[in-house]
Amino acid sequence: MHTVSIDTRFLGELKDSADASLERSVKALEAIQSGECQGSEWLGWYDYPRRHGFDVVRTISSYKESIDFHYDLVVVIGIGGSYAGTKAVDDAIAHKYQGWIDKASAQIPIVYAGHNLSESELVELIDLMDAKQPLVNVISKSGTTTEPSVAFRVIRRYLEQRFGVEQSARRIVATTDKDRGVLRSLAEEQGYKTFPIPADIGGRFSVLSCVGLIPLALAGYDIKLLLEGADAVFESIRSADNLSQEPVVQYAAARIAAFESGKAVEVLAIPEPRLIGVLEWWKQLFGESEGKDGKGLVPTGLVFTTDLHSLGQMVQDGVRNLFETVITCKNATKTGGASVERSIKVPHLSGNCDQLNYLEGRSISEINMAAIKASQLAHFDGGVPGVELNIATVDLHTLGALFAFFEVSCAIGGVLLKVNPFDQPGVEEYKKNLFGLMGKPGYEELGGSIRSRL
Amino acid sequence: MHTVSIDTRFLGELKDSADASLERSVKALEAIQSGECQGSEWLGWYDYPRRHGFDVVRTISSYKESIDFHYDLVVVIGIGGSYAGTKAVDDAIAHKYQGWIDKASAQIPIVYAGHNLSESELVELIDLMDAKQPLVNVISKSGTTTEPSVAFRVIRRYLEQRFGVEQSARRIVATTDKDRGVLRSLAEEQGYKTFPIPADIGGRFSVLSCVGLIPLALAGYDIKLLLEGADAVFESIRSADNLSQEPVVQYAAARIAAFESGKAVEVLAIPEPRLIGVLEWWKQLFGESEGKDGKGLVPTGLVFTTDLHSLGQMVQDGVRNLFETVITCKNATKTGGASVERSIKVPHLSGNCDQLNYLEGRSISEINMAAIKASQLAHFDGGVPGVELNIATVDLHTLGALFAFFEVSCAIGGVLLKVNPFDQPGVEEYKKNLFGLMGKPGYEELGGSIRSRL
Repeated sequence: MHTVSIDTRFLGELKDSADASLERSVKALEAIQSGECQGSEWLGWYDYPRRHGFDVVRTISSYKESIDFHYDLVVVIGIGGSYAGTKAVDDAIAHKYQGWIDKASAQIPIVYAGHNLSESELVELIDLMDAKQPLVNVISKSGTTTEPSVAFRVIRRYLEQRFGVEQSARRIVATTDKDRGVLRSLAEEQGYKTFPIPADIGGRFSVLSCVGLIPLALAGYDIKLLLEGADAVFESIRSADNLSQEPVVQYAAARIAAFESGKAVEVLAIPEPRLIGVLEWWKQLFGESEGKDGKGLVPTGLVFTTDLHSLGQMVQDGVRNLFETVITCKNATKTGGASVERSIKVPHLSGNCDQLNYLEGRSISEINMAAIKASQLAHFDGGVPGVELNIATVDLHTLGALFAFFEVSCAIGGVLLKVNPFDQPGVEEYKKNLFGLMGKPGYEELGGSIRSRL
Repeated sequence: MHTVSIDTRFLGELKDSADASLERSVKALEAIQSGECQGSEWLGWYDYPRRHGFDVVRTISSYKESIDFHYDLVVVIGIGGSYAGTKAVDDAIAHKYQGWIDKASAQIPIVYAGHNLSESELVELIDLMDAKQPLVNVISKSGTTTEPSVAFRVIRRYLEQRFGVEQSARRIVATTDKDRGVLRSLAEEQGYKTFPIPADIGGRFSVLSCVGLIPLALAGYDIKLLLEGADAVFESIRSADNLSQEPVVQYAAARIAAFESGKAVEVLAIPEPRLIGVLEWWKQLFGESEGKDGKGLVPTGLVFTTDLHSLGQMVQDGVRNLFETVITCKNATKTGGASVERSIKVPHLSGNCDQLNYLEGRSISEINMAAIKASQLAHFDGGVPGVELNIATVDLHTLGALFAFFEVSCAIGGVLLKVNPFDQPGVEEYKKNLFGLMGKPGYEELGGSIRSRL
């Protein structure tokens, strides 16, 4: 029994080419396992839980026990892969109105900075920090990315003004390169607690390293469960008799068949709004890993059932260039973390003037599952082939499994597309332009030529 | 000076075909104005502020003054167009941590139900309602859509148990069809205050009718400003000497040129995360209006600068099937509503170990604007043509203008694609399947045939 299983019944027109792609997908996975793929210096995420992760969990636990000041807010400063995985977990598990009502706080709230250049959002974050006792985790491999650097300079000054230089240094944890870089130097100069980002793990593959584990542990999550979930996926691959039966391989084979048949867009449909963070993380993982050299499916999302009343029409009846991946969940009621499982059934009301009596006594999750099945079938009948990924529930274990599942299948996808799944050369273009426009030393000439075009 | 202006410098390969499409775009607009387009029975949104909207504002104000009980939470029950516009405005203006810190509440918080079938989200909403004095606005033209009907039954029972039947009826406002439907009957039976959804305005075009205006007014927004912003767009069209110079027409012409040249996806890039609600509203508007008969661009989003570190690589360097529309904003600091304008500049710190001294004294909004320009240019150079839409600031006036701007250009787009921009036949497929699966009376046979396929 796989933690993330796959159902390929609705592949339709893609069935034969997906089957024909299984063998090369297995070969791609074997190339990743043996380090014989493009970008092999970035394979540290593969099998990470067993190789290092569980040791890291123990180190983090010791640190957490050593904290001798009160905090009631975790501020994560980071962009891209430095925050997306943390947000995916917290969004999925924390109470939606966690910050609004005290009784809802099974965990300490996590908030984010440095993942954009929104001035108003930073102003408002400082309003919130002012009402709380914040602990700040700044996460950047190099320390030179503009967004987190700017946010950290602002927040650092805020903390120093409020707590004094010495006390504020205790409230700052830096997750950065082990040996070099701007943030490493700064942290050592200021005496911040530091944790290393493994040199062989890139941002979008880093959620199960210190990058994601530290803030989640600080917020009170049992991070070991995340790693166990991920390890279940790696273990399934390790112990497989026939790799072509592994869900990661089947998903990769279906996706490459979709791309090669001319599909333009992959729609990831999620069963619950609390998986929106996973959706955003997934969009970065696949968009940044595959979207290069003029290749790759455009990753986009569909939130059940909200978006059936938004993008549903287009999925049903627009241009037939879509491939749909539907995540289904047998029991979506919250059970993870410290929250108590609670269920709502459609109640009885006298009369039937809302015409809903036929649903009386059914749980809302059951109706949601029926809506997912209803739309999956409708989309398939309307000409959208796809696959279904099943998880049993949404908890730390299945989230960890989803991370590993998508990371492995995405790496396979990159190998099949013959691109380096682990670089992001296209991101450099805008960064250079920005340095030029803002007059960073060394970029003056570029700045002049850009300004003349604007 | 247009409230929403357009810059077409980066159309590149599409320039000639966009220019050549201006004349038919003008003709399409004239067909909409004269009611000679497909779906003309749904044109009530056109010029609505002047024809009815300002009167409706006065009616709503009187109602609001008549409320004689305390409330500190507005709960909107609705799906699709029944909530997306309200959320777009509230997300853009309200303090991000409004529910977390009392001093941040310039408005009364708005929360949402009935826009999905998430059991856990409904459980948590009731936790929140329990800590507050809620006022509930249920919005549905027919009252038979499953999501809001189910949520309303649950919430209605909750209110009746907490406040008693009579008092809870005072806390419920129903926005529904003027004459008929399940919600209309229920509201009259129970004595709820009701407001009409105009018969000639469909869900996704309804934000500036009672659908959006009631919850926004109840939360404390000056809804007249929204209508004035929208009216500025309609007035510009009314008084234009040359319609082909109107931004709504130019945007529509560029989009049809993109679609006809084989682009698959339109990326709407927003300058600030607080416009995510506008982005989601826009996705529904265009996806549901154009995505039919095998036509239409797939609408997707890019949040500056967050998604430059996520989808940016793919936009820069993936399959060249993208058209990018960038919203820029000269002054994005919050000024709307009761919030006070506050600015953050990059502060001075002794030393330069974060290598950011070259940004000292620059406002974060200025750096954000440079990042937008930097990426716009990089994407264009990478082979993504597009247009830029400029607004001066993000406030109620410009939000109203954006709604009207996109509604008009979307309607033109539908006419150019020769589809009915105002229907959504594809949404019926999944609804029927759901009724079948859940055993709704009259759908038993369909249910059997679906179950045999699952």
